[in-house]
Amino acid sequence: MCAIFGIAGQQEASNLTYLGLHALQHRGQEGSGIVSTDGKLPFVHKERGLVADIFTATNIAKLEGHSAIGHNRYSTAGGNTSENLQPVMMKSSLGWVGIAHNGNLVNANVLTQKLEREGSIFQSTADTEVILHLMAKSQEKDLINAIVHALKQVVGAYSLLILNHDYLVAIRDPQGIRPLVMGNLHGKPVFASESTAFDLIGANYEREINPGEMVVVSLKENFTVKCFRPFEKGALKRCVFEHVYFARPDSVVFSSTIYQTRKNLGKQLAKEHPPLDAELVIPVPDSGVYAAIGYSEFSKLPFEMGIIRSHYIGRTFIEPKQSIRDFGVKLKLNPIADIVRGKSIVVVDDSLVRGTTSKKLIQHLRNSGASKIHLRISAPPTAHSCFYGIDTPNKTELLASSHSVDSIRDFIGADSLGYLSLNGLLQVASEVSGAGFCHGCFSGEYPTPITTIV
Amino acid sequence: MCAIFGIAGQQEASNLTYLGLHALQHRGQEGSGIVSTDGKLPFVHKERGLVADIFTATNIAKLEGHSAIGHNRYSTAGGNTSENLQPVMMKSSLGWVGIAHNGNLVNANVLTQKLEREGSIFQSTADTEVILHLMAKSQEKDLINAIVHALKQVVGAYSLLILNHDYLVAIRDPQGIRPLVMGNLHGKPVFASESTAFDLIGANYEREINPGEMVVVSLKENFTVKCFRPFEKGALKRCVFEHVYFARPDSVVFSSTIYQTRKNLGKQLAKEHPPLDAELVIPVPDSGVYAAIGYSEFSKLPFEMGIIRSHYIGRTFIEPKQSIRDFGVKLKLNPIADIVRGKSIVVVDDSLVRGTTSKKLIQHLRNSGASKIHLRISAPPTAHSCFYGIDTPNKTELLASSHSVDSIRDFIGADSLGYLSLNGLLQVASEVSGAGFCHGCFSGEYPTPITTIV
Amino acid sequence: MCAIFGIAGQQEASNLTYLGLHALQHRGQEGSGIVSTDGKLPFVHKERGLVADIFTATNIAKLEGHSAIGHNRYSTAGGNTSENLQPVMMKSSLGWVGIAHNGNLVNANVLTQKLEREGSIFQSTADTEVILHLMAKSQEKDLINAIVHALKQVVGAYSLLILNHDYLVAIRDPQGIRPLVMGNLHGKPVFASESTAFDLIGANYEREINPGEMVVVSLKENFTVKCFRPFEKGALKRCVFEHVYFARPDSVVFSSTIYQTRKNLGKQLAKEHPPLDAELVIPVPDSGVYAAIGYSEFSKLPFEMGIIRSHYIGRTFIEPKQSIRDFGVKLKLNPIADIVRGKSIVVVDDSLVRGTTSKKLIQHLRNSGASKIHLRISAPPTAHSCFYGIDTPNKTELLASSHSVDSIRDFIGADSLGYLSLNGLLQVASEVSGAGFCHGCFSGEYPTPITTIV
Amino acid sequence: MCAIFGIAGQQEASNLTYLGLHALQHRGQEGSGIVSTDGKLPFVHKERGLVADIFTATNIAKLEGHSAIGHNRYSTAGGNTSENLQPVMMKSSLGWVGIAHNGNLVNANVLTQKLEREGSIFQSTADTEVILHLMAKSQEKDLINAIVHALKQVVGAYSLLILNHDYLVAIRDPQGIRPLVMGNLHGKPVFASESTAFDLIGANYEREINPGEMVVVSLKENFTVKCFRPFEKGALKRCVFEHVYFARPDSVVFSSTIYQTRKNLGKQLAKEHPPLDAELVIPVPDSGVYAAIGYSEFSKLPFEMGIIRSHYIGRTFIEPKQSIRDFGVKLKLNPIADIVRGKSIVVVDDSLVRGTTSKKLIQHLRNSGASKIHLRISAPPTAHSCFYGIDTPNKTELLASSHSVDSIRDFIGADSLGYLSLNGLLQVASEVSGAGFCHGCFSGEYPTPITTIV
Repeated sequence: MCAIFGIAGQQEASNLTYLGLHALQHRGQEGSGIVSTDGKLPFVHKERGLVADIFTATNIAKLEGHSAIGHNRYSTAGGNTSENLQPVMMKSSLGWVGIAHNGNLVNANVLTQKLEREGSIFQSTADTEVILHLMAKSQEKDLINAIVHALKQVVGAYSLLILNHDYLVAIRDPQGIRPLVMGNLHGKPVFASESTAFDLIGANYEREINPGEMVVVSLKENFTVKCFRPFEKGALKRCVFEHVYFARPDSVVFSSTIYQTRKNLGKQLAKEHPPLDAELVIPVPDSGVYAAIGYSEFSKLPFEMGIIRSHYIGRTFIEPKQSIRDFGVKLKLNPIADIVRGKSIVVVDDSLVRGTTSKKLIQHLRNSGASKIHLRISAPPTAHSCFYGIDTPNKTELLASSHSVDSIRDFIGADSLGYLSLNGLLQVASEVSGAGFCHGCFSGEYPTPITTIV
Repeated sequence: MCAIFGIAGQQEASNLTYLGLHALQHRGQEGSGIVSTDGKLPFVHKERGLVADIFTATNIAKLEGHSAIGHNRYSTAGGNTSENLQPVMMKSSLGWVGIAHNGNLVNANVLTQKLEREGSIFQSTADTEVILHLMAKSQEKDLINAIVHALKQVVGAYSLLILNHDYLVAIRDPQGIRPLVMGNLHGKPVFASESTAFDLIGANYEREINPGEMVVVSLKENFTVKCFRPFEKGALKRCVFEHVYFARPDSVVFSSTIYQTRKNLGKQLAKEHPPLDAELVIPVPDSGVYAAIGYSEFSKLPFEMGIIRSHYIGRTFIEPKQSIRDFGVKLKLNPIADIVRGKSIVVVDDSLVRGTTSKKLIQHLRNSGASKIHLRISAPPTAHSCFYGIDTPNKTELLASSHSVDSIRDFIGADSLGYLSLNGLLQVASEVSGAGFCHGCFSGEYPTPITTIV
Repeated sequence: MCAIFGIAGQQEASNLTYLGLHALQHRGQEGSGIVSTDGKLPFVHKERGLVADIFTATNIAKLEGHSAIGHNRYSTAGGNTSENLQPVMMKSSLGWVGIAHNGNLVNANVLTQKLEREGSIFQSTADTEVILHLMAKSQEKDLINAIVHALKQVVGAYSLLILNHDYLVAIRDPQGIRPLVMGNLHGKPVFASESTAFDLIGANYEREINPGEMVVVSLKENFTVKCFRPFEKGALKRCVFEHVYFARPDSVVFSSTIYQTRKNLGKQLAKEHPPLDAELVIPVPDSGVYAAIGYSEFSKLPFEMGIIRSHYIGRTFIEPKQSIRDFGVKLKLNPIADIVRGKSIVVVDDSLVRGTTSKKLIQHLRNSGASKIHLRISAPPTAHSCFYGIDTPNKTELLASSHSVDSIRDFIGADSLGYLSLNGLLQVASEVSGAGFCHGCFSGEYPTPITTIV
Repeated sequence: MCAIFGIAGQQEASNLTYLGLHALQHRGQEGSGIVSTDGKLPFVHKERGLVADIFTATNIAKLEGHSAIGHNRYSTAGGNTSENLQPVMMKSSLGWVGIAHNGNLVNANVLTQKLEREGSIFQSTADTEVILHLMAKSQEKDLINAIVHALKQVVGAYSLLILNHDYLVAIRDPQGIRPLVMGNLHGKPVFASESTAFDLIGANYEREINPGEMVVVSLKENFTVKCFRPFEKGALKRCVFEHVYFARPDSVVFSSTIYQTRKNLGKQLAKEHPPLDAELVIPVPDSGVYAAIGYSEFSKLPFEMGIIRSHYIGRTFIEPKQSIRDFGVKLKLNPIADIVRGKSIVVVDDSLVRGTTSKKLIQHLRNSGASKIHLRISAPPTAHSCFYGIDTPNKTELLASSHSVDSIRDFIGADSLGYLSLNGLLQVASEVSGAGFCHGCFSGEYPTPITTIV
């Protein structure tokens, strides 16, 4: 996961980039960075933390120029240093180049080993550095040619924004695995992982960058835009998990509004796994709300916000020594006893990964008096790791990789458990976005050979 | 507004108080404090900021003892110093005493002037200090008598928790204006502004502290609890705004669950102000969600989360110099164009104070394509200031104090505007909590004479 | 210890106060505060930490007005709250009053008990609050009369700056225990604990506030200055420890420059305790430097900075688990082996309190090769606690309270140990400042009866 | 400037490295970093700020292993990002390698251009990255061979510590421009820029790393030490400015104790530029103290600490709008009027770069009453830039590059001005350390051809 944002030809390019990154904060909270340019020099600020904390009027003022790219990094277990924050900057025979990457290359290790044998050095663990090495080694004099040369060698998921003193370039991989959209503000181009970033800054949404497309904005020619198709178009393999969970509900991604898709997933879920004896439909907020509305609409059962989510959770929490039952989940989610007491309920969530939170929540609901709990998941069982940019745990930690639905139901203590079928998911997603999805995390069918597994 | 929490006879009294304050964070975000005791000395920590930032394992460890009280303070315009943070500590002939107060005294100025004439000094602007002065001047040797002596002189709203080396005392004013509930954890007493604090720490809800009741926990006698009625019972005047907006939806307040009340307010609102030609019901999240569910249920119109709220808003924000239309509201609330486009919609909110946010939101919805916007408010017009602890603006800033509903509708740009009637509000609130509410902010009818207006 | 600073009739009163407090930082590092006024309202900022960290352009800009007082508080063991920071603010029948206090009242406990019996409440542990209570209870309508009324009841050490909307008042106790000096900037009055604060802001030093004198600046009458003698003059008892250790060497205190006094103490020390067989004189930096220069001059032995002090010491330090010999002292003080190796040396310091640092330093010097170490202290043995504002340890922790000079010498491991005699100290101090000193910490002879010992 | 520290075979390697960096804080305050290893993995922490603030018990605990290297970076004007902090880490065909560098390569730009033409990318502006590229491109399988291969291509100043899973390597350039010393702690090797780091951790000083020497500690063979001479020995060109200013006075650098050298420079200065009519010798503290002691000793004039330095200076300072004369220098340095009034004085400082501080200080001394001011500088005029790691300003900003001594004297307003002669400096330095110094900043005679000037 991660977010990227880019803008050209604006008086306050870095301030607008900061707002765009803020709107995309849900895609990455570990740290953020912006590189801006006045067409000559680059200006860089990167830091660990949230967008609203990192950027100040002072450091935005130092990010001069008319064009900028930015990046939010998803929180991972990795080290104490900030080497992995993006955009990554390099200086090479091409001059300075900044790059922001959403996605993951599956042949990064193979390429890294080859590059190391040839004498290259790596200063981060990010696969993005591989692209920069390939560009620098291309012997191409021109940034655009160097990018094409480099990307022809990589396999995997990438939505990229690349900035130098001459160009802002937006590229999406040939299979379109990760999203990337394009809009305009006062006639000048703007790019983002999701359209919600355009809403905040008052830009208009135009279209998706096409899979395999490269959009080049010429900073020296009045920010004119040219589109190329340097890569053979692959089979369309958009990440279906963007629909299920990752994108913001108010975003247009893969040409459709996420909210509607999620609601439709809820309807399909109700069709496949009816509520049995349930009297109410209750979402696990916030992410389960949209599917629950669809489930309620299809099943004609009342929709109730029977679980309240606290939004004041900080980074760390001082747990009392004496155990409080279901403490972790209680901090975030509190059932309303008055709603669930004595009721048979359908609880709708959008995923079930390790199962520990669901288990605690169900226990918490029972303590609040729910008589029966039918858990419904608006996605198929997550049984496989993702190698294309979603931070799923190792396969061994995925409950569904080694347990049947029945045994999962028993583990979490639900009265019934229903997952949306893969067919149901793909049917709903295809209705709004057309066919062509990667569903590797559900099916194990990956869009590319996996030559390296970190 | 403000939150109070108290606990006695627990091994980790201060850690549990910290968790209780965390659950009550919505009632006050300016700063917090805890006073604990081992039955001899007091231990104090107060700071500006959010509960999750203020308290660390290190400073909680220093808050020793088996009993504690805590306070969250609501953000106000006041000064740079931390004098107004609570619990307030004093040393007097009674020994040390800590006090945490939710509410506001309406005769504080009169009492302050009297006390100053007698040579008292005040070190904060908080009316709570008046209570301490009255206690100290009582000539009573015993804390309980001193409290009764003091409170017999004050008029207004107060839910109080008072701690010294011998007692933890909980008191609610004779009219029961502000809430205060009681529960138990492992058989020992716990007190909070709202029951949701009990859910987090695994305590059981027992009952409301009665209006005019004083509950005394004896720290030296195994935390036994005695209940007194030292004050004449007044006419019940509970703050109806707790039902409308202030309390958490998962809390039991005034003996009923807030969620149900709000949903019923939505139903009543739909009865009084039907949706006209609307096709959808959309809440202003988060606080409008519950009334919108009720409105949808009664009106049979579909409920849609057509406005998405961002939860990453920080304290300050760097606005770009070039104006972005409706910038302030966009940072928090984003309509989903795909839901509202071409639709006539009912938008449900729980209050309309100055009208500026509603005006911007309606413009933002129109830009997103809504064809008609019917704003419905699940409360009567806020036309009067509150003198009992809710931080309403001066009357002159309250749009409804000087404008008719029609002129408010025109100002905010809605196609129609409907407020819940005062009768409708009181009927719904009385159904769940029995009769007896203060509705001064709507009606101007105050429960006490107002002898001082600051 | 503590520092006070006050200024009237200046465009940037709070900024100049901030600089004055910065120059007086050595007198207190726990926290600081400023109260300013425009002749109507007070503006307050107080915080824990160093002056340079507490005050920002933003919060200084909010400290409006032409007059201000400020305070640095000395670090003490006390609690986590900021109640004890000064200036203390009160509101009473006199209106608002701010007070900054350097010194300590010895009858504070007696007065506190009396006030508590009469119904007063105390919110800090500072004796300064007693003065405010006495002022408020005076029934005087006028600030000046109220101050005189209050101070006639207190016994002990006080240099005070008091600000309200009408006056800035500077007072020094009748025995002149703590210093307070007066200067002018562009013809308007300025006050400080030490003259070094005037140097920084370009003000001219004029004179000491006399013992028992009250200087009143009228904010409403063009900042004119009037001087009163409301208190009977007591026997002069200025704190001789200001000369020995506490004041900055570049300050004029008690009408003489500290640097010269300290150098003369070193000469006297050399006279009383000659260097025996020593070849070099080495100070313990920074405070021992000035006496060492005098010792070197009198003894004709070369002066060498044979111990280097690090100025990068932070608040806390992560000590390795494996013990490093003399770790604590090594962080601050490092002998230069090349200077001390094989040499018999005189080491000059200005005090020896618990003896632990001296013991470690001597061991460290021996490890660096010193053949003989003659420790010389430019003050008598510290054998008694101070009750007048210097934070000496309890008498039981004072090595000299229970050990002879010989046994101290053996404990710290010096080859010889010489303390300046009390007579020698008083003779040197009297030569520059005239007679009349408190030497309670050396002699146990206190200037007032001690009615309370905290 | 910069500091490096390395240690092998210790239980608390990272904690000892932290202490070593703390002792070397004077060589660099911009930021610091540590890389440690357990012989397998690297553990890294780098941050901007002071050593005492960067490292906490928590992050030191994560720096596991028996061996570590660390680096303090000198504050420069450079960007907001932390890319330039050291040790620099790389991964290449050699595996992971960490490197800490004190010095500057003069052919870095030439090598960078060559490497870029061959397809290398650079992620920092530090010349250290060049060394890593050359190592990685060496095709050597062994770290030691790769280092030798790389360093044979670079020209300039380098003291290096290099760590991987097998080795800790210490190298000093063939001309010995920057210092690097070796010691032992419990029989295991330790390295540092200056010996003062050994004093703090209780290690014994052994010797300098010889110019052109490489000392290899084998982590897998019980931390045995082998010494090589892979580079031809060049003409000895040690930085004479280490003697004059940069090293700590208590350090052994270039085989002699800095304190003695500085004192001898003061004696030589007195010989070359006698005090004329002066009555006192006063240092500009802290750095001028040692030469002033020597000047005083030789000239038989009394030494007085007539200027007091404040050690509470923070990063930024809020200057009042109304100008205070000589504000900047007053914050740090305050003359004692009582010492200088009516006196002709010699003021001793160790350098005069732009002249602005000296000019203000002299004015400040005159305002304090000094009748004559004879400025003496214990080094020759700084007339040339340094390309070997000292952060001198551009030549155009060096007062002495374009002004005669007479015209400098007039500019700063001294009555007389005397610089130590280059011959005098070299004679003093050679007496203690033997011949062979770089004096480029004074003479413009550089030890290597300068192929690139940034």
